[in-house]
Parts: sequence; structure tokens; C-alpha cells
Amino acid sequence: MTKSLEEVCSDVLEKTVPTNNERKHILELAEKLRRRVKTAVEEARIEAEVRVEGSVAKDTWLKEEPDIDIFLQVPITMPRTAFGTICLEIAKKATEGHKQVERFAEHPYLESFIDTTRVNIVPCYRVKKGEWISAADRTPFHTDYLKPLLNKSLRREIRLLKRFMKGIGVYGAEIRVGGFSGYLCELIILHYGSFAKSLRSIADWRESRIIDHEDHFEGRDQEVRRIFDEPLVVVDPVDRGRNAAAAVRKEKLDELIVASRAFLAKPRLEFFYPQETVTYALDKLFHVMTARGSTIVFIRFGRVRAPPDVLWGQLYKSLRSLRKMLQQHDFKIIRDQVWSDERDLNMFVFEVEQRSLPFTKKHLGPPVEKMEECENFLRKHVGMASTIAGPYVEGGRWVVETKRRHTDVVKLLAEKLKRGGRGVGVADLISKALTDTIGILVNGEIAKLYSSNAEFAKFLTEYLKGKPRWLNGIAVQK
Amino acid sequence: MTKSLEEVCSDVLEKTVPTNNERKHILELAEKLRRRVKTAVEEARIEAEVRVEGSVAKDTWLKEEPDIDIFLQVPITMPRTAFGTICLEIAKKATEGHKQVERFAEHPYLESFIDTTRVNIVPCYRVKKGEWISAADRTPFHTDYLKPLLNKSLRREIRLLKRFMKGIGVYGAEIRVGGFSGYLCELIILHYGSFAKSLRSIADWRESRIIDHEDHFEGRDQEVRRIFDEPLVVVDPVDRGRNAAAAVRKEKLDELIVASRAFLAKPRLEFFYPQETVTYALDKLFHVMTARGSTIVFIRFGRVRAPPDVLWGQLYKSLRSLRKMLQQHDFKIIRDQVWSDERDLNMFVFEVEQRSLPFTKKHLGPPVEKMEECENFLRKHVGMASTIAGPYVEGGRWVVETKRRHTDVVKLLAEKLKRGGRGVGVADLISKALTDTIGILVNGEIAKLYSSNAEFAKFLTEYLKGKPRWLNGIAVQK
Repeated sequence: MTKSLEEVCSDVLEKTVPTNNERKHILELAEKLRRRVKTAVEEARIEAEVRVEGSVAKDTWLKEEPDIDIFLQVPITMPRTAFGTICLEIAKKATEGHKQVERFAEHPYLESFIDTTRVNIVPCYRVKKGEWISAADRTPFHTDYLKPLLNKSLRREIRLLKRFMKGIGVYGAEIRVGGFSGYLCELIILHYGSFAKSLRSIADWRESRIIDHEDHFEGRDQEVRRIFDEPLVVVDPVDRGRNAAAAVRKEKLDELIVASRAFLAKPRLEFFYPQETVTYALDKLFHVMTARGSTIVFIRFGRVRAPPDVLWGQLYKSLRSLRKMLQQHDFKIIRDQVWSDERDLNMFVFEVEQRSLPFTKKHLGPPVEKMEECENFLRKHVGMASTIAGPYVEGGRWVVETKRRHTDVVKLLAEKLKRGGRGVGVADLISKALTDTIGILVNGEIAKLYSSNAEFAKFLTEYLKGKPRWLNGIAVQK
Repeated sequence: MTKSLEEVCSDVLEKTVPTNNERKHILELAEKLRRRVKTAVEEARIEAEVRVEGSVAKDTWLKEEPDIDIFLQVPITMPRTAFGTICLEIAKKATEGHKQVERFAEHPYLESFIDTTRVNIVPCYRVKKGEWISAADRTPFHTDYLKPLLNKSLRREIRLLKRFMKGIGVYGAEIRVGGFSGYLCELIILHYGSFAKSLRSIADWRESRIIDHEDHFEGRDQEVRRIFDEPLVVVDPVDRGRNAAAAVRKEKLDELIVASRAFLAKPRLEFFYPQETVTYALDKLFHVMTARGSTIVFIRFGRVRAPPDVLWGQLYKSLRSLRKMLQQHDFKIIRDQVWSDERDLNMFVFEVEQRSLPFTKKHLGPPVEKMEECENFLRKHVGMASTIAGPYVEGGRWVVETKRRHTDVVKLLAEKLKRGGRGVGVADLISKALTDTIGILVNGEIAKLYSSNAEFAKFLTEYLKGKPRWLNGIAVQK
């Protein structure tokens, strides 16, 4: 039985719009916390405004995942270091007796949990619009901008879009995800008017999409492109110099586009609430890996002491560097991935077509027209120990067959990472952790870890399947 | 001890210019044969002029390899079929009692051997200049054009250039070689004035070189390029519509260019008279092949009944087709070659980096912008048995990892050639021979043939060394 888009959306709304009671509960909790923070502020004798911000303030949170954001707007005379000292202490005091985690985005803040509700207490400066000091200073302006523009209907559409983004895995501006923030979802709905209209527009997005709801750059797309070079540009209504979609990576944008098309073609609840991945049993895991015939190298290492955004930034940077290094050594990478539990275990995964390369490699020299380069090339290669055959002329250029230095991908990685891999572009903190705790596992050697770590097992199962979860339902179309 | 260019050339001239006695002997033999053919012509009651042509007529032959060309110029009223009947019989009669081989270029002719001297008796039409019927009709005009322009000095320079071309392996317009004809060597010397000047010019040749000694196209290079698309164009002085260098393949041109440079940098006799290749002993052969770490596949097959130019044309065409087929199946070819003794044994050689490819292959689909193509791609791959992982979006396009149909290069070749390989572009006569007599050998399996066939052993040794023989001496420069 296929459902219409309206039917599916109505099912989703039932699941994700808080009931009146739930709304009341969260708003009361938020207000109680705000007051507690305010009290702590007063006790600390600093002059700060305390406001509820984010999705709770705008009534756009998803009922299954309420996040309460409390902002401390401190005077601009306060030094930035106070964010990590006085402000953090105020936050700790206000949530005393609950689980607390010190976090760090651009600056420190406190995450705590009241029962299952996440509460972020974030310091920022109380500034005039446009005179931003810290990254969080815009948030109150976002709230003030949106609140009067939203109505009940738009808030429902926002919840649909957020839930959709979560379902397909593109929600979140943190570096780990590189996707769409809640604020960005709100701006998209504000601009297009509804979830369905947004998806229809997104399905048709072409390169270099620009949304400029407040017409800050009316008719001056060229200028926008000069200022912003991200794949998606959503000019922040409260700051024309900021791209509210700056965090969106090209791949996440592409995933949203193709998922939107697939959803519009066949609306299904699974886009919003994908089925949990059932991890492969161990024998199935071996079978699937063997059937691939490739070589999967797992580089595991232990704790990196850094906030998630720093950790993921360094993980991705290091992944790119190692990918480049392997490609320069002629290994054909099928896919690579990075995984982290953000605690004790980090992992690079490189899947290459073949573990070993042949000893001999064809090395292309200069075209015969370049006389001087040719002479140097011949001087370098004729009769050298590293020369296996040639040089000879082929396709208009000198070519020589030489001995390959590295033929085994595992040995190559082990050698390059022996001292942390800084020389091949591994980021500092990762390099340090690698030096102390590296372990390299190949193919089936991952079994023990797979069996003992459910989170990782899920990651690896999804990796091996290698397709967006919402694609499962598409197969039925045939 | 390094010698000057003049010293080396003087050594060569000593070896390659016939002595007066030798010249007298060849000219007398040629004249005797001409008269015999003339007699046979008269006995056959046809009206034909009989002339000595080629290098003997122009006194430009190499003393170690004299070729006597006798041309029968028959009236244009004679049907083309007569070349293979009456003319051939005349030729046979004239060389009765000597070894005779029926040959075929554009049309039939007779090759015979008087002692060790090769004699070609070639029919052609007696035409007016420009009214060419058969390909050989121009030859008498070439002789008539050049004879008055050559002097003793130029003839010495021509012999040097011919010997040089032979030495580096680019002499001969036959399809097997794809190099420079004797006539072309003569034109080059005529144009540049001497061997040294020719080499200096050649060393500096750039793309699309044009020589137009008679200024047929004076100042109209564009027009020349429109008419001729070969890498080297030498406008035939007796026929402005013909490129005397049409047979020269790009690789042979390149080889001449780089050899010229190397020779000018360090003149050595070896360029003219390279050392015979000493074939590897069997254990050395194994060692060299193992050290390469590649897979060499030898496809052998038996006699192809065709004149050499037809045989080589089909061999090269088939080699190209098979190369393309292997590349389409993702095998990385290091080099390929074809070898033939022009009698009982032919051989394709394909050296690939690795015998086996991984089971899984990454198949790139359409960019996400192409909506309809994306839909088709998904319909084709989601949930299919051939799909190993994905589809997923990567780098702005859909990608799927699929099962590879062919992972073993030997099995792939065996399968494609089972019925002759016509379906993958193998030429007709080759296909027929393959069907009846194919044998596939891999790496060391070639040992038996190597040991029993000195000609092939030399080919394989040179293949494995893979460099022009004149490069050996260059190593000393370091």
C-alpha cells in the first residue's frame, strides 16, 4: 500500500509534534533552568542576561529529542577566558546533581542531562547586531528574527524537514556530520513555505544554489558567489556576511537532493524513521568481506583528548592525507571512512582493490619534444638498478619500467604511521594518538572488535552495505 | 675513446659503400637479369619495357645487402590479373633454377635469390606521369627524378642514413616495420644535403613535420595538413598527391628522432651496427620474469596464409583490438607486442600488472544533476544480485560496487578467443588461425618454446630488456 505525501507527513507529525502536555513540560523545565542560571549569575555578581534560545524558544523541537539551550549574554567587557571559567561554573552550579559534560565549539559550554533531556548552557556576548565577537552571539538574534515570522503551520513544516534530515542522516552542522543545522531548516521552510515545497525545490537544486530570503544581495548573485564559495549558500537574514549553510558539505547536500527526489517519487515513513541496521552475524560478516575480494585495512587508535569538532576535523583531515598518500603509491581505493566513538576508540578504514601491487611500475617520462627533460630522464634511468625494463619510447614519450618501492598496502601504512604520520599529513592530535596506540587489522582480523563493540559493528555493517538506508525501499519499485 | 661524427661516418662508409669490384659485379648481374627478363617478355609476345630500378639503378644500395629490382612496364591495356599470371611466369622463367618466392604487395611480384642476392621482379604499368594505375607505376619516375640529382657525395650520405635507420630499426616501409623506405631516405638527404645535416634537423623535428622539396605546396602548409594526416609528410616530388612518408608510424618517427639526438650527442658505430642481442640463459629468463612480478600471457598460433603485409596488418589490428578489450575489462597492460616468423608461428604477448583483478569493481553512475539517468541507474542496481555495495553518492555522482564478470586475464583471453575472437575485433585470417591452433602460455610456461626457437628467444630477450639497443652505450655517459 503506497501512501500519499500528505498521509506520510501526517503520520510523521503525529510522532514528532509535542503534545500540549509535553510542550508544557519542556517549557516549564526550560524556564526553571533559566531561572536557576539567572540565580547563579546573580550570585556570581556578574551582569548577564539569561535567555532560552534554540528550538525550544521557537517551538520547533522534535518531541523525541528535545534540546534546551540556555544562553548567558555577558557584557563585552568580560574577557573571552571567562567563558571557560566563571560562565562554566555558573552553568555547573545551575545543573548541580545532574550529569555534566564540558563541551567546546568555538568556545567552552556545558552540556548536562536533566533526566533524558539534554541541556546546553552557552555563554555569549551581548552585542549589537552586526558587532559579533563570539560565534554564539548571533543566536539570540536568530531567535528574535524567526519567532514573529513563524506560525503553527510553519512550525509543523519545520519539524517535518528536521525529521526528514535526521532520517536520511544529513541533520547537524557539527563537523562530524557536515550537514544542516536546525536554524538552516527553519530558514529553508521560511523561504519555500512548506516541507513539500522545500523538497520539490531541493530535488531540483543545481550547482551553486543561493537562498537569500531577505534579499540582502537582490539581483547580485555574482557578488554572493564572490563572497561565499560553499556549495550551498543561505544568506543569514541577521548577518549578510554569513552563510548559514557554510557547514554543509557537498556530499551531504547531494544526499539531501537525491533523497528528496526519491521521497517525492514514493513517500514513505522510512525516510523520517529509518529501520535500525541489523548487524551482520559473524559468519555473514566473513562471507560478505570475502565476496568483496578487496582488502580492508583498519587502523585503530585510542583516545584523542579534544572536543568533538576538533577531533572530527583532525580525523577528516588525516583521512584525506592518508588517502592521497595511498593513491600516490598507486593503490586503488574503493572507499575510505573514519569512525569514532568520541571516547576510547578511533578508526580509519581503507578499502583497496588489492593488498599488493606488482613489483614493476610503468613510469611515464617526458614527451620526446622536450629535449632537455629527455636527456635528464635517460641519465636518471638507463642502466640503473631500479630500472626493470626500458627506457623506451611509447605514445610520444619516454617510458621506463621501474621497481616499485612499496607493494604492500599494510606495510606501507605501517611504515608511514610508525612515527605518527605527521610527514604524510596526519593532523597533530591524531598523530600523537597513533604513535602511542596504533593497531592495524586487515579484513577478518576485525572480528574480535566487531563482536565486542555493537556501535562499531553497526558502522561496519552499514559500511559494507554502503547505501543510504532509505534506498532499501526503492528496490520494491522494480 | 670517443670518436667524432666524421670518424664514425668514415668507418661506416668503409663498411657499406660497395667497392668498385662489388659495384661492377652487381651492375653486371642486374643487367644480365634485365636482359633475361626482356627475352622472356619477347618470348611471351607482350610489349613491355624492362628496367633496373631501386637502389641498384641509383647506386645507393648497401654493399652488405644488395637488392636488385627489375621492373616490367606493361601497357595499360593489359588487365591487372595479368600481373599474377603472365608477368609472374615471365619472372619465373627469367630466374629459372634459383630459389623463388611469390610475393604480394599491392599486387603480385616475384622474389628470387641469385646466390645471396635478392632479386625482385615487379610488374607495373607504363603510364604517363600522374596517371598512376598500380602503386608500382611511380617507381620508374622516382628513379628518373633522382638519378640526375645525385652525385657521389650524396650517394655516400644516403648510404649512411639508410645504414643508420637499419641500425636503429626504423628502416623499411613494409607494414611490419612501419618505417622509412629507401626512397624516403634518398629524399631526406636530397633535401637536407648530408647525413649530419639530416640528423641535426631530425633531432629538432616537432609535430607535423613537412618536407616539400619541390615546393609543390609552397607556403601552403595548411593545405598539406588538410590532404595528409600522417605524422611525417614528405611530398613526393613526382606526385604532389602522395606522401612518400605515409608508411611511417608515429612510434618509428619518435624512435628516429630520439636516436638522432643520442647519436649527435655521442657518435658511435653501434648506431649503425648494433651488437647482436645475446639471449638470456633459461635460469636468467626465469629470474628476470619473476623479478618483474607481472603476468605475461603468450597467445601462440600457427600459420596464416597471407603475404607479409597482409599478415602484419591483421596482426597489428588484432593486437589493438585485444588490447582495447583487456583495458575495457580493467586490466592494466604494461606492454604488448606481436611477433611472427612469417611462417609457422605467430604470437601475441600481453604483459599485465596482475593476472587477477578483485571481484569488486567500482562503477561510476550519472552525476546527481541528471535526474532521469539517476533514476535508471538506481532501478538497474538497487538490490540486484550483481550489486556488492551501494549505490551511494560520492563526488557528486551515484556509484555502485558491482561484481566483476572477468577477474582472470588468462581465462578472459581464452574465453574471448575460443571461437577466434572475431567478436572482439580480431582480424579474419588471424581469427581463423586462432580457432584452429591457439595455445595460451603464461610466464614461465614459455620456456620450452624459448629454448627451441632462437629467433623467438631473441625477441623475448629484447622485449624483457625493453630498450633500444643503441641506448646501451648511453649508460656509459654517467
